[in-house]
Amino acid sequence: MSESISTLQTRFERLRANKLFEAVVIAIIVVSALLIGAKTYEETSRFEQALLIADMAVTGFFLVEILIRMAGERRLFDFFKKGWNVFDFVIVVASLVPLQDSEMVLLARLLRIFRVLRLVSMIPELRLLVTALFKSIPRMGYVALLMFIIFYIYGAIGSFLFHTVDEKLWGNIAVSMLTLFQVATFESWATAVLYPAMEQYPYAWIFFISFIFLNAFVFLNMMIGIVLDVMQKESVQMELESGEGEAAELHGLREDVRELREQLTRMETLLQRQER
Amino acid sequence: MSESISTLQTRFERLRANKLFEAVVIAIIVVSALLIGAKTYEETSRFEQALLIADMAVTGFFLVEILIRMAGERRLFDFFKKGWNVFDFVIVVASLVPLQDSEMVLLARLLRIFRVLRLVSMIPELRLLVTALFKSIPRMGYVALLMFIIFYIYGAIGSFLFHTVDEKLWGNIAVSMLTLFQVATFESWATAVLYPAMEQYPYAWIFFISFIFLNAFVFLNMMIGIVLDVMQKESVQMELESGEGEAAELHGLREDVRELREQLTRMETLLQRQER
Amino acid sequence: MSESISTLQTRFERLRANKLFEAVVIAIIVVSALLIGAKTYEETSRFEQALLIADMAVTGFFLVEILIRMAGERRLFDFFKKGWNVFDFVIVVASLVPLQDSEMVLLARLLRIFRVLRLVSMIPELRLLVTALFKSIPRMGYVALLMFIIFYIYGAIGSFLFHTVDEKLWGNIAVSMLTLFQVATFESWATAVLYPAMEQYPYAWIFFISFIFLNAFVFLNMMIGIVLDVMQKESVQMELESGEGEAAELHGLREDVRELREQLTRMETLLQRQER
Amino acid sequence: MSESISTLQTRFERLRANKLFEAVVIAIIVVSALLIGAKTYEETSRFEQALLIADMAVTGFFLVEILIRMAGERRLFDFFKKGWNVFDFVIVVASLVPLQDSEMVLLARLLRIFRVLRLVSMIPELRLLVTALFKSIPRMGYVALLMFIIFYIYGAIGSFLFHTVDEKLWGNIAVSMLTLFQVATFESWATAVLYPAMEQYPYAWIFFISFIFLNAFVFLNMMIGIVLDVMQKESVQMELESGEGEAAELHGLREDVRELREQLTRMETLLQRQER
Repeated sequence: MSESISTLQTRFERLRANKLFEAVVIAIIVVSALLIGAKTYEETSRFEQALLIADMAVTGFFLVEILIRMAGERRLFDFFKKGWNVFDFVIVVASLVPLQDSEMVLLARLLRIFRVLRLVSMIPELRLLVTALFKSIPRMGYVALLMFIIFYIYGAIGSFLFHTVDEKLWGNIAVSMLTLFQVATFESWATAVLYPAMEQYPYAWIFFISFIFLNAFVFLNMMIGIVLDVMQKESVQMELESGEGEAAELHGLREDVRELREQLTRMETLLQRQER
Repeated sequence: MSESISTLQTRFERLRANKLFEAVVIAIIVVSALLIGAKTYEETSRFEQALLIADMAVTGFFLVEILIRMAGERRLFDFFKKGWNVFDFVIVVASLVPLQDSEMVLLARLLRIFRVLRLVSMIPELRLLVTALFKSIPRMGYVALLMFIIFYIYGAIGSFLFHTVDEKLWGNIAVSMLTLFQVATFESWATAVLYPAMEQYPYAWIFFISFIFLNAFVFLNMMIGIVLDVMQKESVQMELESGEGEAAELHGLREDVRELREQLTRMETLLQRQER
Repeated sequence: MSESISTLQTRFERLRANKLFEAVVIAIIVVSALLIGAKTYEETSRFEQALLIADMAVTGFFLVEILIRMAGERRLFDFFKKGWNVFDFVIVVASLVPLQDSEMVLLARLLRIFRVLRLVSMIPELRLLVTALFKSIPRMGYVALLMFIIFYIYGAIGSFLFHTVDEKLWGNIAVSMLTLFQVATFESWATAVLYPAMEQYPYAWIFFISFIFLNAFVFLNMMIGIVLDVMQKESVQMELESGEGEAAELHGLREDVRELREQLTRMETLLQRQER
Repeated sequence: MSESISTLQTRFERLRANKLFEAVVIAIIVVSALLIGAKTYEETSRFEQALLIADMAVTGFFLVEILIRMAGERRLFDFFKKGWNVFDFVIVVASLVPLQDSEMVLLARLLRIFRVLRLVSMIPELRLLVTALFKSIPRMGYVALLMFIIFYIYGAIGSFLFHTVDEKLWGNIAVSMLTLFQVATFESWATAVLYPAMEQYPYAWIFFISFIFLNAFVFLNMMIGIVLDVMQKESVQMELESGEGEAAELHGLREDVRELREQLTRMETLLQRQER
């Protein structure tokens, strides 16, 4: 019987690697995404029953698919070693939350939306892209902290100074920071934020313009820093690779010259012996 | 007679390559563009008859010009081998749609506008630029897909959560995605989109700020990725070119050393013979 | 007398190169800029007489200064050889237009404003910056032409389709192109331009989103192109410089090896002679 | 007794370098930041007494901490040699301004906000980032001056031309420059600034579009310039480092060849002696 299990496993393994199977999975993910999109249209409310059944079918398919992929693994533990498998597993299990339960309906719907993300784990090029994105997070971490400190300080100052101007924009530090984020994106920063403040504090422009400049300055430097950082790494690696060929050639040359010298030494000995 | 055709063909070939002829074609394209522009002014409606005649003259000229260029080709098939020729042919043929036909008038007008694009196919520098643009499309493909997935997921969530806030902005997933595009361009995203949503859902800012950061993050990484990608290719090529000279020099050196060794071996043999 | 002229010329030459003289000129330019700024304040209208006198003093000083610099040149023609001198000359001469003449008053005022630009020609670092800016213009020329063609085509289409939506935004091709420029800067493009158009043409978003993408795409590619272009030139130059040292070393090595061979040939001849 | 002082100093030195001590200081800075944030909420006014005591505790702690760090230095003068120490000292001393004094309350509050900046001086990564930012200031200086000249000239022209259009936007040169800054950030530049001006001056768009293009052009060139500037420096350094290995190898080779020649010369002398 252990043999038949092993045969089954090999079968699942082959199925998992099958291109057609992959295409079907991607198609089902797209269908699942379209179902989610369809549900946002009021007009589809009369097909609610049909949509519910389609949703259950998709959920079922995903469950079967992930079980096949788990069964195709020699040891179950290996399946959970890959981050993308854990990601798929969590998304599939999470979408088992029943849709009908009126209390959980919103949560269940949201979880179903994240099934679209399975497209990322299915298409290798997207997986590569997202992995690259994740790798660039630490580089951005300290800049984000610095930015947050700038926002916090300006938020506190803004809240102290301008909370009498507009309670909605500068009521407390949280609201102030949101307003500053709006200023940082240049959205109505002059007409809706700066000018009302300047009516009460004519020098309020110093606050805003210094904030904008500081932000642009940090952002610009960060971008340049990241570009240089990445480039340097690539460049060092490339130099090493391109340098290897030449270094090998040079090394060979020195070997040749060393052998020449040995030969010459032998000859010199001969000559000296003739001399005597 | 076959000879006279061949002479004619050579003549057309020469005419096609003529700088003056090219200048005339470019001038006519500019005139055609000005005619299109002129028609957008209400005041020109009384010159409608004149504009119509001018348009017919331009259409006729373009037809004659493309026929000359086709006749100048040794085999007609060669003409359609170049993408830019096909492009010109389609534009010229499409603008033969009669203008007077009241039903087709809008389509005919639109097709005539695209004649301005012939400027691109006539000026080599613009042709180069557009070719370079087309080449960079595949690099952008998967990033565009990733962006679309992000927009789709946020669009679905936004539609589920906020469709009670503003039916016009969040009514269904299509409208939601358009609203999100507006948010991504920072146009009135805070005053017209965020604040109304926050009145009902005080934590709506998490949705918007995470969306803006995610977008900026993917966009930034994409730009850096493309710059590095292009640079690496150029750099590798350059290293190869600059490295070639040095590699040749090194190779020559090794040859020289090898010959030295052969000479030494000959001399060693001589010495050993003397020994005996 | 010719000698005394020559002495005078040397004196002017020395004065022109004097650091203090340069500082005074820069100070006067700043004063002139402040005068221009002061005149924009309503409150200064009662000092009009004083401002007029100050302006005349500045104009006089600039005239004397440029005459000194011209006199300091060995040949007058040499003075006009440098672009920056011509620039200074035109600005100084142009500001001789009398201010009181009521008809020319606006022109005279505008010309006086451009005197601030003399700061650029006086400070070497700014002169370098502006020269670098001018050098980068040709690189941008064809991209600007391509952009203009895109704007023209979209402007014509926009005018044909949307002139019934808003005569002020889409009345004719000139107004359309201005509206498109507003869209390209993302200013109220959705709330004030897209949504009104979508009420009549529900698919208007295709027009706007394709325009925004096309623009961003061309702009991005242009920026990347320029960065790479500049970098490649610098890099090639650098490689040449850094490569020179190594190439010289390699060349020296080959010379050494060649001399070795000559010596060996001499020795081989000796050995062969001993053989006989 | 001098010995006990020395022991104390060593103790303080050790305490200062203690990781736990650092963590406590960072925690207190965060607490101090939270206190500042809390005070911006209206609801916290009834805990005013508690907040005041907490603030005094934090102020006291910072005072003790900086005294420990000063005592841990062998010579007090060494403490003030490091810029970051001076920065910390100024912030701590400035926050000794009493909060209750009704006249100084705003200033005292503002000074307390800057205590959050101590986070930067405590975390090495942030310190590095800020140092890098400061280093990039001179590079930006002349570009900023050029930008200011552009703003000043356009501000003066704008004020002369448009002060009849909107006194609030173009009343004097200072207000004009602020309006131009708003235009440069694209905030309502068309709807609120350009269109009103165009009603009176139909060609006002030339002023605005030339300003936007000039700005974008200078900004773009500046960014490219900085990227290239930084890159070149890094690249030169890298070439030097990577080139060193190869250069050493080449140098070694030449030494080898020189020794070969000496050996050959010795052998030639021997051969020639045999000849005689």
